[in-house]
Amino acid sequence: MKIYMDHAATTPVRKETLSAMQPFFSDNFGNASSLYDLGRKAKEALDESRKKIARIINAEPQEIIFTSGGTESDNMAVKEIAFANRNKGSHIITSSFEHHAVINTCKFLEKNGFKVDYVNPDKYGIINPRDIEKLITEKTILVSIMHANNEIGTIQPIEEIGKICKDKKIIFHTDAVQTFCRLPVDVKKMNIDLLSASGHKIYGPKGAGFLFIRKGTGIFPLLHGGGQESGLRSGTENISGIVGMAKAAELAGKEMNSENSRLAKLRDILIKEILKIPGTRLNGHASRRLANNANFSFQNIEGESIVMLLDKAGIAASTGSACSTKSLEPSHVLLAIGLSHKDAHGSLRLTLGKSNNEKDIKTAIREIKKIVNQLRKISPFQRIIE
Amino acid sequence: MKIYMDHAATTPVRKETLSAMQPFFSDNFGNASSLYDLGRKAKEALDESRKKIARIINAEPQEIIFTSGGTESDNMAVKEIAFANRNKGSHIITSSFEHHAVINTCKFLEKNGFKVDYVNPDKYGIINPRDIEKLITEKTILVSIMHANNEIGTIQPIEEIGKICKDKKIIFHTDAVQTFCRLPVDVKKMNIDLLSASGHKIYGPKGAGFLFIRKGTGIFPLLHGGGQESGLRSGTENISGIVGMAKAAELAGKEMNSENSRLAKLRDILIKEILKIPGTRLNGHASRRLANNANFSFQNIEGESIVMLLDKAGIAASTGSACSTKSLEPSHVLLAIGLSHKDAHGSLRLTLGKSNNEKDIKTAIREIKKIVNQLRKISPFQRIIE
Repeated sequence: MKIYMDHAATTPVRKETLSAMQPFFSDNFGNASSLYDLGRKAKEALDESRKKIARIINAEPQEIIFTSGGTESDNMAVKEIAFANRNKGSHIITSSFEHHAVINTCKFLEKNGFKVDYVNPDKYGIINPRDIEKLITEKTILVSIMHANNEIGTIQPIEEIGKICKDKKIIFHTDAVQTFCRLPVDVKKMNIDLLSASGHKIYGPKGAGFLFIRKGTGIFPLLHGGGQESGLRSGTENISGIVGMAKAAELAGKEMNSENSRLAKLRDILIKEILKIPGTRLNGHASRRLANNANFSFQNIEGESIVMLLDKAGIAASTGSACSTKSLEPSHVLLAIGLSHKDAHGSLRLTLGKSNNEKDIKTAIREIKKIVNQLRKISPFQRIIE
Repeated sequence: MKIYMDHAATTPVRKETLSAMQPFFSDNFGNASSLYDLGRKAKEALDESRKKIARIINAEPQEIIFTSGGTESDNMAVKEIAFANRNKGSHIITSSFEHHAVINTCKFLEKNGFKVDYVNPDKYGIINPRDIEKLITEKTILVSIMHANNEIGTIQPIEEIGKICKDKKIIFHTDAVQTFCRLPVDVKKMNIDLLSASGHKIYGPKGAGFLFIRKGTGIFPLLHGGGQESGLRSGTENISGIVGMAKAAELAGKEMNSENSRLAKLRDILIKEILKIPGTRLNGHASRRLANNANFSFQNIEGESIVMLLDKAGIAASTGSACSTKSLEPSHVLLAIGLSHKDAHGSLRLTLGKSNNEKDIKTAIREIKKIVNQLRKISPFQRIIE
């Protein structure tokens, strides 16, 4: 039996979601732009999905633009807000531990004449809204801060940051890929102007995401063409993917509170037991973190080796975000919260989900203890940790 | 029983394709960037799909970049070739009857300092390669000409255009969304540097496409982030969609010749019979057109009315491309081949596919004759056509 503990990387499509998607592959396969019956059915499914998503974040349906996923949503939000508001200014504020979809888009903008400030989180992985406020100038057009970090799960003071931006009339974007349907989101109350999310993190399909764009926000399209999605995102709509994402969101939204309580208990057992291993630290904040996230650093060993041996033991986990696994660089998130290169290399992220139960947690604890012990015996760093 | 005759807009996912996709929703759901078993399985499926696609167009697997569809591929090809080669020049040549994904991307580039020439096709819908050659200057960096037009199905002399571009060292892109697996494509023989295609036009899923980029071609990414697809297209890969597209391509590629012969026969019956209706013309070329495409103009009536009444009779067809159905403007394709606004408004596109048989064709002919007759009786244009 396999134990999957990498729910921040991706999740399986749940049964009810797949059932909701099935009719749109081969039966109701119409193009939503077509005038005939099959096209209208696709259009209706699209509209219904838009309503479902909007309801969850307290937005209007027409404020939801469907995309191919979180990365496209982040790219559109950051890049196209920048270009559409260039006449107002060219300064952007973000953080140094955003997802690469935001960071690398900002780096692209820096090469194109924009100035970007990257705010550092504190050592617990929390951004101080005052640090953002201090950087705001009259040239600032956009602040982009993630709702919760994808590696260490820390939850950011989005509402306060939103308030600052609102007061200063600056557009505020949040990457909510890790929090959509995992934390309550109210775009009105939280003063969010743009919000990115994705289907495959919430037991929906890969290849579907959305961008919330507050009515009246000046933005350009990222994809030009046939004018779908109110002219903001051209391309034939991926109806089965969108319907699946909306269904998954509807279900995950309803279960959010009960599932969060359940996962937080499991996570706390995990954290308590793993911290008993000498030379281990919990990365991120003790309480201001996602209910399903635990991230550790183990002195003197490589995270990648732990992940490999856990895989052999039938447990799927990661060192940090899945997107960076092929990179030899240590996690930019762990460096941002002050870890040394060496400690950042010794990280392990466990992100729990629907399939995990207490038995899994016990198995994971046992295997991690065994593996850390084993790796330390062969570690080139000879220092014994007490 | 419904008759679907809009295969250029989209196609149903075929049974074998859906079967190939199913395991990747809930069982092999891993993130292709993850290090463990489930991630490796996703990566293998991705690599296998890349090989299948590459084989069909005679490319190397690493020259295939997966995208969310034809529109994204066209946007990336045109926009990111332009920006990556700006130091060499700022002149682009395309045609006036490209898909909007190319035309509107070119219009975006015009606002950003590029000069774009739009070559007109002749009255049969064919581009003359000499017209392109004449426009080439030392500032020309890109030529983008579609392989076959999506409305009138005319096949362009891609190989000749490719040869001209190769000789002049200009990058050549072709939008092959309508021809991938419908016509033989050999990117080496045809001197194609970039080629866009999509899954849902060939009985694969919506939300998956690809861009062929010849090795050594200077291009920027459109989506920044985790660095997937060799750094050229970030975002968690839509494995089920990609696997489905590759499977659909494999099957459609094998059946291409026999299916083309079958469809051309059906189309020719359709054309012969419909042209017997007075005041009717065939748009596009008599022989240099896709085997499944027929496009007519009927004097003094609106195409939209024909489509509505055909829908009532259980037949799905369109006036032109699905993308433009919500626009009140007449088809830019029909205007480009010289039709008047009035005639362009009276167009009907029928695009055949796997589900159509001779009986469908006879039904469609009967219904179209009836509908045209009925509409002409109530037409505000009182002129009787003989």
